[in-house]
Amino acid sequence: MRAVIIHPPHDLRVEHRDVPDPGPGQLRVAIRAGGICGSDLHYWQHGGFGTVRVKHPMVLGHEVAGVIDAVGAGVTGLAQGQAVAVNPSLPCGVCPICQAGDQQHCLDMRFFGSAMRDPHVDGGFREALVCEATQAVPLPDGLDTTTAAFAEPLAVCLHAVRQAGPLLGRRVLVTGAGPIGALTIAAARLAGAREVVATDLTTAPEKVARAMGADRFIASADALAPYAARKGYFDVAFEASGSAAALLGILPVLRPRGTIVQIGIGGDVAVPMSVLAAKEITWRGTFRFHEEFALAVETLARRAIDVAPLLTAQFPVDRAAEAFALAADRSKAMKVQIAF
Amino acid sequence: MRAVIIHPPHDLRVEHRDVPDPGPGQLRVAIRAGGICGSDLHYWQHGGFGTVRVKHPMVLGHEVAGVIDAVGAGVTGLAQGQAVAVNPSLPCGVCPICQAGDQQHCLDMRFFGSAMRDPHVDGGFREALVCEATQAVPLPDGLDTTTAAFAEPLAVCLHAVRQAGPLLGRRVLVTGAGPIGALTIAAARLAGAREVVATDLTTAPEKVARAMGADRFIASADALAPYAARKGYFDVAFEASGSAAALLGILPVLRPRGTIVQIGIGGDVAVPMSVLAAKEITWRGTFRFHEEFALAVETLARRAIDVAPLLTAQFPVDRAAEAFALAADRSKAMKVQIAF
Amino acid sequence: MRAVIIHPPHDLRVEHRDVPDPGPGQLRVAIRAGGICGSDLHYWQHGGFGTVRVKHPMVLGHEVAGVIDAVGAGVTGLAQGQAVAVNPSLPCGVCPICQAGDQQHCLDMRFFGSAMRDPHVDGGFREALVCEATQAVPLPDGLDTTTAAFAEPLAVCLHAVRQAGPLLGRRVLVTGAGPIGALTIAAARLAGAREVVATDLTTAPEKVARAMGADRFIASADALAPYAARKGYFDVAFEASGSAAALLGILPVLRPRGTIVQIGIGGDVAVPMSVLAAKEITWRGTFRFHEEFALAVETLARRAIDVAPLLTAQFPVDRAAEAFALAADRSKAMKVQIAF
Amino acid sequence: MRAVIIHPPHDLRVEHRDVPDPGPGQLRVAIRAGGICGSDLHYWQHGGFGTVRVKHPMVLGHEVAGVIDAVGAGVTGLAQGQAVAVNPSLPCGVCPICQAGDQQHCLDMRFFGSAMRDPHVDGGFREALVCEATQAVPLPDGLDTTTAAFAEPLAVCLHAVRQAGPLLGRRVLVTGAGPIGALTIAAARLAGAREVVATDLTTAPEKVARAMGADRFIASADALAPYAARKGYFDVAFEASGSAAALLGILPVLRPRGTIVQIGIGGDVAVPMSVLAAKEITWRGTFRFHEEFALAVETLARRAIDVAPLLTAQFPVDRAAEAFALAADRSKAMKVQIAF
Repeated sequence: MRAVIIHPPHDLRVEHRDVPDPGPGQLRVAIRAGGICGSDLHYWQHGGFGTVRVKHPMVLGHEVAGVIDAVGAGVTGLAQGQAVAVNPSLPCGVCPICQAGDQQHCLDMRFFGSAMRDPHVDGGFREALVCEATQAVPLPDGLDTTTAAFAEPLAVCLHAVRQAGPLLGRRVLVTGAGPIGALTIAAARLAGAREVVATDLTTAPEKVARAMGADRFIASADALAPYAARKGYFDVAFEASGSAAALLGILPVLRPRGTIVQIGIGGDVAVPMSVLAAKEITWRGTFRFHEEFALAVETLARRAIDVAPLLTAQFPVDRAAEAFALAADRSKAMKVQIAF
Repeated sequence: MRAVIIHPPHDLRVEHRDVPDPGPGQLRVAIRAGGICGSDLHYWQHGGFGTVRVKHPMVLGHEVAGVIDAVGAGVTGLAQGQAVAVNPSLPCGVCPICQAGDQQHCLDMRFFGSAMRDPHVDGGFREALVCEATQAVPLPDGLDTTTAAFAEPLAVCLHAVRQAGPLLGRRVLVTGAGPIGALTIAAARLAGAREVVATDLTTAPEKVARAMGADRFIASADALAPYAARKGYFDVAFEASGSAAALLGILPVLRPRGTIVQIGIGGDVAVPMSVLAAKEITWRGTFRFHEEFALAVETLARRAIDVAPLLTAQFPVDRAAEAFALAADRSKAMKVQIAF
Repeated sequence: MRAVIIHPPHDLRVEHRDVPDPGPGQLRVAIRAGGICGSDLHYWQHGGFGTVRVKHPMVLGHEVAGVIDAVGAGVTGLAQGQAVAVNPSLPCGVCPICQAGDQQHCLDMRFFGSAMRDPHVDGGFREALVCEATQAVPLPDGLDTTTAAFAEPLAVCLHAVRQAGPLLGRRVLVTGAGPIGALTIAAARLAGAREVVATDLTTAPEKVARAMGADRFIASADALAPYAARKGYFDVAFEASGSAAALLGILPVLRPRGTIVQIGIGGDVAVPMSVLAAKEITWRGTFRFHEEFALAVETLARRAIDVAPLLTAQFPVDRAAEAFALAADRSKAMKVQIAF
Repeated sequence: MRAVIIHPPHDLRVEHRDVPDPGPGQLRVAIRAGGICGSDLHYWQHGGFGTVRVKHPMVLGHEVAGVIDAVGAGVTGLAQGQAVAVNPSLPCGVCPICQAGDQQHCLDMRFFGSAMRDPHVDGGFREALVCEATQAVPLPDGLDTTTAAFAEPLAVCLHAVRQAGPLLGRRVLVTGAGPIGALTIAAARLAGAREVVATDLTTAPEKVARAMGADRFIASADALAPYAARKGYFDVAFEASGSAAALLGILPVLRPRGTIVQIGIGGDVAVPMSVLAAKEITWRGTFRFHEEFALAVETLARRAIDVAPLLTAQFPVDRAAEAFALAADRSKAMKVQIAF
C-alpha cells in the first residue's frame, strides 16, 4: 500500500509499505480521504513545532475516514464495508488524568501522525490503517468520507468552544480564519453566539468565513479599534492564528472578565500582566478533544454545520506533494485533502 | 489636618490641608491607621505603574480605618465614635457593568488614592477623610483599627481566591510572598486548600509565609522542578509577584487544565502559546474586590485569619517618609502602617 | 382607549380608560399586538396562581409590542413612530439583589400585568401604554410587532436555557409542548443541543414541536422507558408543563448528575429524596429574564428562531374574550394574540 | 474470624467465617475499627432503604480502618503492618460513567456492605477483610485507626460540600445534626463558609454541632423565620436529615438562586414547583464520593478537622448488638464504633 511519509527534516515521500493485519479488538480501514492539517505542514516545512521534532520517518495524517476492510478477533458491531471516521486519539484510559475524564491529556497518549512520542506514532495518510475498534466511528447514512474527514478538525473546534462556557447570546471574536478559525466560527454559531466577528491578515478567507457564519470580516487591525469603547465589546475571543499580534489585539476589545480561548499553536507572546489583571481577563488554552469526536461526526451527519465551503481541493495520493504545496499557500487554500 | 501627599514624580510630603465637612449621605472619619500598599510605593518611586501616571499632587493611601467624627445629613445607623474600616472603592452602581454585578470594573469608578482618573481621587493617608456612608463598614467588637486596616488587602486576596473556583482539596502554589502573597496564602487556606507551597526570591518572608499557612516555602527556582513530573502537580497557582520569571516557572508544575490567578501587576511576560494551549491552562487576572470588603472585615473580626505576623511596624504620620522607606525594603518589611 | 381587564374572580372585560401621558423619562406606546400568556389565563380562570391572587381589577398582558406615539421629557434616542417591544420587567436597580446582577429577583420589582404587588401593576393589553424609556427595545428593520410580541416568552425560554449550563452537544428532553415548551425547544436548539425529544399529554402540539426543532415527539409516558437504560440518557431536561407526573417521569431517564430546569409553574410534586440524592440530580428553577429580553428581540430580528408556527390566531381587542377562550383550549391553540 | 452479619429482615448476628486470602493485587486487612452508619442501621431495622432490600445474609460495615496482615501477588508499595483506611468503593473504571470521571455512579460498582447488587457485597465489620490494594489508603504518622474510620463519612461530606460550589464567604444552613450533618458543618467551615447555622429536632446534638463549627444551633422551626426576610438569607443549605419538613423549611430562608444540597436519604417530599421556579432555587443531590476518600484521610491526618467530639463510644465486636442499639438512639449517640 502507499503511504505519505515525512523524512526529517523536509522530505515528503509517497512510499510503499506492507498492508498490516488487525489484531484482536482492531480493525483495518481502507482510507478514502485525509485532510492536511497545520501540524502536518509544520512537520514538513519546519520539522516540527514547539519542542516537538520529527526524529525518524513517520506516516503523516490524522484527519481520515474510510471503509472497514478487515475486522480483528473479538470485535462486535462493526463489519467489513462499514464507512467510518477514525478518531486519531487513543488515550490509555487508566492513568489518573484519564480517570478524571481529561483524556486529551493522557499520560500515555497514542495519537496518529504525531511525533510527540519517540518512536513516533504513524499516521493515517495511507491506503490501509489499523486502529482499535473503539477509534472507528460509523458514519450515519448520507455522510460521505470526504465530509467525514472533517470530523477531526471540527472536534478540535467543538472542544475549543466548550472551553469558553455557554455562548448563547454572547458576542464572539475569532482571530485567524484558516480552516480551524473557520470551523470555530461555525461551532460558535452552533453554540448560539449572538454575533461573530472574524479577523485575518488578508481578505482571502472572507468568503469562507462568512459562509461559515461570520457576521463581519475584518482584515485590518485598525478596524477593531471602535470595539474598545466602554472597556471592550466581545464576551469571548477565539485566537486561532497563533499570532502574537492577534492575541494582543484582543485585549482592548474584550470586555472585563471576558475569555480568550487559545487554539492556535504559536510562539511566545509578550502579554502585559497589568492588563490581564486589571480587566480580569481569562486566557485559556484548548487542546485536541475527546468525546467531541463522536459529536463532530453526528454534527456533520445531521448537517448542522456544512463544511463544503472549506474544501479547496482533493488530490490523489500520488500527488501528495502537490496537495501539501497548495495547503501551505494560505492565499489560495483552506482545507486540502488527499484521496486514497 | 496632616496628609501624606505625593508630588510627581518622586516627592513625598506631609502637608497640612483643611479639614473637610461631610455632605449629605457622607461621613467624616478620623483615620487611625493606614497600610502602605505596593501601589503607594509605585506612585512614590516610579510615578505610577503601567499606563497610570501621577499628574498632580495626590493624597496617597487606600488601606485605612478610623473612627467616625462627623455625620452628614440623612445618614442613619452610623454615629460619631463608631470605629469603621473605609472601603476605598466607590463604583457608580448604574453603568451596565455595575448592573451586571461586576462593580470592580465600573465605568465611572472613584477609588481613593488612585491616579487612574484625572483629576485623581485623593486617598486616605490623612487625619480626616470624608467618604460616602456606604463606604464605611462598622468594626465588630474586638476588632481594632490597626487590624482593620488590613481589610482592604485581604479583600483583594479573598477576591483573588474566588477567581480560582473552589479550593477545597486543591493543591496550591503562591509565587511571591510579600503582603499580598502572604494574605493569599491565608485566604487559600481559609478556602480549604489541601496544600499550599509558597515561593519567593529570598528566604526573608519564609517565617511569615509559614505563619500564614504555607506548608512549604521555596526560595530556589530549582526546588520546584520535581513538581513537574507527570505533567504537573498544582491545581491552582496564585501569581503574586508580578515577575515574569515567576509566571513562567508555574507553567511546568501546573497540572493540565489548572488555573493561574494573576494578582501581581507586573510588566510583559513572554508566554509560550503552545504550552498554554497544549496543557489547557487557564490564566486569569484578578482586580480589586467588591463585596469581599465587608467579608474581609468579618473575617478579621472572627479571627479566621490572624494578620498580626504581617505587621512589621507602625510610624506616626510625621515619619511617613521613614515608613515608606521601610515598606520599600522587602528584605526587612512586610506591611508597614502609618498611625494618625 | 380600550383595555382588557380582569375583574376578580373570573370576569374579563374590555373597558375604556383614559389615555395616559408619559412623564419624564417615559414613553407612550400604541400597542399593536399582545400575546396571551398562561399567567393571563390563570388570572382569568383561577383568580391567580400559587399564593398570588387578583384582589382588584387589573389590566392584563405583558407580551406586547407597538409603536411609540408620545415621548416624555428627557428621553433621547427614541422618537414617535419607532416600533418597539416593551419589556414588562422594571427592577429597581438599587436593591442588593439588583446590584448583584439578579434583577429578576428585585426586592421592589414592577412587572406589567402582575398581581404580585398590591396594588397590582396594570398590564399591556390596552391601546396605549406608558412605560419607562428603558423598557422599550427598538425593533430592527424587518421585525414586525406581531413577531416582536413573542420577545417576552422567548426571553423566558432563553433565560431558562441559560440555567442549564452549556447545551452544545447535550441530549435534551422537554416535557410540555405548549408555547413555552415549544420556544424552549427552539432555544435549546439555538444553544447547540445535539438532540431534542419533546413530550406532551396529547399529540396536538406535535407538528409545532417538530417545527421548532424537536427530533422526536412522544405523547405516551411509556415511550420514555427505554431512555432509562444504563442509568439514564438525557443530560438536561426542561420541565415546561408544571405537571408533577412529567417531573417524576424525568427522574429515571436523566443521566446521573443531569440537570432539570423547572419552567412550568405547577403545584406540589412528591419528589423521592433518595432518587435525587443517589443520582446527584440537579433540579433548578428558572424565573422570567433580564438581559435576555433584548437578546430575544435580536434573535427574532435575525430570524435565528422562526416563531410563525406558534401563532394560532390574532383577534381584535373587542373580541378579547374569544381570544382568551381559544388560548385556554390546548387542543386547538398554541399562542393567541390580541391586535390593537 | 468473627463478622457482624445481618440476616434479613432484622436479625443481627456475630458469626464466625473463614479467614480469606488475598488474591493478586489484593490485601488482607486486620480491621481495627468500624463506624456504624445510618445505612447499616437501616439494613438492621428496616431491611433496607428506598428500593434496596437485604435478600440474604450480608456482612455489614463500610467505615473501616485496620492494619495490613497479608499482601497478594504483585502488590507494591504496601507491606504487612501498614495501617490503612479502606475505601469501600470499587468502581469498574472502564464504563462510560467512570471514564467521564463520575466513578461514584459506576454502572458496575462494588461497594462494601451494600445490598444494591444481588448477590450483595459483604462489608467490613469483620476481623479480616480482603480488598484491592487500590482501596487501601495508608495512614500518615500520627493518624490512628479509630480516627481513620471516620474517613468514609467525612468523604461523603467533603463530596457534598463540593456540590455546592465555592463556600468562601457564603452563609450556610445545615438541617439535621447527626453524624453526617455534624461532619458537613465541619466540612463547610473547612471550605471557608462565613457563617454556619445548624438545625435539628432536639437540642441533643447542639454541643457536638457547635464543636464542629456551627455558629448557631436551632432546635425550633420557628426560630428560622426571621431568616426569610428580604427573600431569604442563606446562600447554601445542606439537608442532612432526610426529613421532608426540614427540606420545606429551607425554601423560605434560602436567598434567590441559592443551592440546597440533599445528603439525607429520605422518602418523598412534596415540593412546591412554583416556589422552586420563582426563586430559581437549585436542589442538587449528592451521593458518596470518589477522590474525596484520600482527601478525607489527609484532612484527618493534618487535623484540619477534629472528629473526636463525634465519637460516642466504641464496643468490642462481641457486643455489636449493643453498639447498634446505642447508635440507633439519636438522643444519646452520634457515632458508635465497633472495635476488632
